[in-house]
Amino acid sequence: TRRYSITLLPGDGIGPEVISVAKSALVLAGSLEGIEFGFKEMPMGGAALDLTGVPLPEETLSSAKQSDAVLLGAIGGYKWDKNEKHLKPETGLLQLREGLKVFANLRPATVLPQLVEASTLKKEVAEGVDLMVVRELTGGIYFGKPRGFSKNENGEEVGFNTEVYAAHEIDRIARVAFETARKRRGKLCSVDKANVLEASMFWRKRVIAIASEYPDIELSHMYVDNAAMQLVRDPKQFDTIVTNNIFGDILSDEASMITGSIGMLPSASLGESGPGLFEPIHGSAPDIAGQDKANPLATVLSAAMLLKYGLGEEKAAQRIEAAVMDALNRGFRTGDIHSAGHKLVGCKEMGEEVMKSI
Amino acid sequence: TRRYSITLLPGDGIGPEVISVAKSALVLAGSLEGIEFGFKEMPMGGAALDLTGVPLPEETLSSAKQSDAVLLGAIGGYKWDKNEKHLKPETGLLQLREGLKVFANLRPATVLPQLVEASTLKKEVAEGVDLMVVRELTGGIYFGKPRGFSKNENGEEVGFNTEVYAAHEIDRIARVAFETARKRRGKLCSVDKANVLEASMFWRKRVIAIASEYPDIELSHMYVDNAAMQLVRDPKQFDTIVTNNIFGDILSDEASMITGSIGMLPSASLGESGPGLFEPIHGSAPDIAGQDKANPLATVLSAAMLLKYGLGEEKAAQRIEAAVMDALNRGFRTGDIHSAGHKLVGCKEMGEEVMKSI
Ligand SMILES: CC(C)[C@H](C(=O)O)[C@@H](O)C(=O)O
Ligand SMILES: CC(C)[C@H](C(=O)O)[C@@H](O)C(=O)O
Repeated sequence: TRRYSITLLPGDGIGPEVISVAKSALVLAGSLEGIEFGFKEMPMGGAALDLTGVPLPEETLSSAKQSDAVLLGAIGGYKWDKNEKHLKPETGLLQLREGLKVFANLRPATVLPQLVEASTLKKEVAEGVDLMVVRELTGGIYFGKPRGFSKNENGEEVGFNTEVYAAHEIDRIARVAFETARKRRGKLCSVDKANVLEASMFWRKRVIAIASEYPDIELSHMYVDNAAMQLVRDPKQFDTIVTNNIFGDILSDEASMITGSIGMLPSASLGESGPGLFEPIHGSAPDIAGQDKANPLATVLSAAMLLKYGLGEEKAAQRIEAAVMDALNRGFRTGDIHSAGHKLVGCKEMGEEVMKSI
Repeated sequence: TRRYSITLLPGDGIGPEVISVAKSALVLAGSLEGIEFGFKEMPMGGAALDLTGVPLPEETLSSAKQSDAVLLGAIGGYKWDKNEKHLKPETGLLQLREGLKVFANLRPATVLPQLVEASTLKKEVAEGVDLMVVRELTGGIYFGKPRGFSKNENGEEVGFNTEVYAAHEIDRIARVAFETARKRRGKLCSVDKANVLEASMFWRKRVIAIASEYPDIELSHMYVDNAAMQLVRDPKQFDTIVTNNIFGDILSDEASMITGSIGMLPSASLGESGPGLFEPIHGSAPDIAGQDKANPLATVLSAAMLLKYGLGEEKAAQRIEAAVMDALNRGFRTGDIHSAGHKLVGCKEMGEEVMKSI
């Protein structure tokens, strides 16, 4: 048997409910493939704020660093929305990404044939969408310095941030994106605003430089405003998209909504080495927290990404993915993806159906 | 008779074709309302680069400044795409906006009942969408300093930009947005990324401060990633959106594509005083330039915005708007908005049909 240590970060809102289901899926799929897990549950986000006064306690970060992979539920909630910056749940998430050095955020947006009706896009536009956003996650305007509040020449108050990318930051995310495209349909679209921003001109220059290492990949470039349009006009034109932290934040959320089922979408954040961070792309949904209404499948599929990208355990990953499809094919749906003719179930029951299928 | 001087900037690609139609519409609607126009056509964008070596010649800017309003076609094209920054058509546009100090960019996104089928969104989602994006246009990361290329502590190359807003820049765009919302359905959504960026925290703080002057307007706040999703999920939830330059660039293009008919959408850019800048939101479409295929209606409707917002000539504006609706109702469609059962016409013929209706 192979043994892995996993840090679980249930977080806030529906986080604990969905993490509990994903944990069971890991245990079961693992046991069938000769894998044993050691789990450590640690506080993070609002839960950590309430418990320890900070959104990412040192013990949580060091446990995460020492484990083989990290699975996160969701963070945030109204309760902490007005907190100062260093006491926001979101700040804990940014510290975790920075601490784990997970610079590459992989966000698939796939329209499953079973769920094509869930999209607000017309069937012929949504059907068959299968794209991957590769978002730079530890640089750009999220982390750039200087930042803060000050006065300008006229003594007037200003708020400011710095969008900045160094060559190696672009090079490494570009390589991840080219590799990702190679495992997919061989097309990479780099999104920037190089007609206006120097940071984007530099981004484009480095992406083109790295492209010479990947002659088999078809590279294109698109301005971010056009990309936001094209995702609505014809999302099928995209295979792999690579972009900076803030554009990736916006476009990956837009892309996920185009699928109509963000309760289904996982994500993986990877570094050069060290544990990856895996989390559903949805938020903590405080409105339905604790009511057994959440869709656990995004977290279950994040666990599958953890197996595949984090541990190299392809077979166990496939077991989980297949089980999710099977539960859907057998007609089970949580409220967010429910439509007439299907069986409406809660978070736990959906979890049980997935277990049966594993 | 009232007399106004208008600077026309046909620009590149389909620019000259659509400007020619809009000019005729202005002349005709004006003559029926006792308005006379003096037009001055000036080079701008790629056309100016070819003619004078710069994308915004001094004479063009000074003519624009001295006129009562400026009507722009479109700029840009493959030919100049690889130019250095200061020789890009886009740079000319940014210089024009800065030179005219038009800090408030109003971009309506309306789904016309006649064109609801053109949207890639399901009919029930697209039907009735009627929102306005108020985008800050002369500040933020587009103009922020420092910017450029340099080396970091490790001697590595970097590209960087500064996102920065001063209090008065936020205050004035917020006021335009609150006023706009007041003339519409009384709802304003301010979009930022205040959970991460100091520039956004400051934005939100100032918007909230200005809100006290507008107790009748319902103000909400949304993070930009969520806004990008909500535009796809349920665009009807929005009335007026106010946001910074770069988020406005992205979200207004996304919103316009949601209508499915960006060939129909105008925009207005306004300052505290001085002439406004009016332009269709679509680009120069070099692929179809000179083929009489362009949809002139976005520019014709921009001329209507020019009359309304730029000159206060509401009646003439309404004449043009009504004529556009009438031409659509009579079944005329350019290629971009054509569907079965309608009469396919070119740019000129569409223009003639609008003239008939005026
Ligand atoms: C919560 C927030 C800080 C975060 C981000 O902006 O990165 C979220 O939107 C995401 O995309 O994971
Ligand atoms: C052409 C470009 C500089 C411009 C912008 O980014 O503002 C365009 O996209 C727009 O929205 O008018």
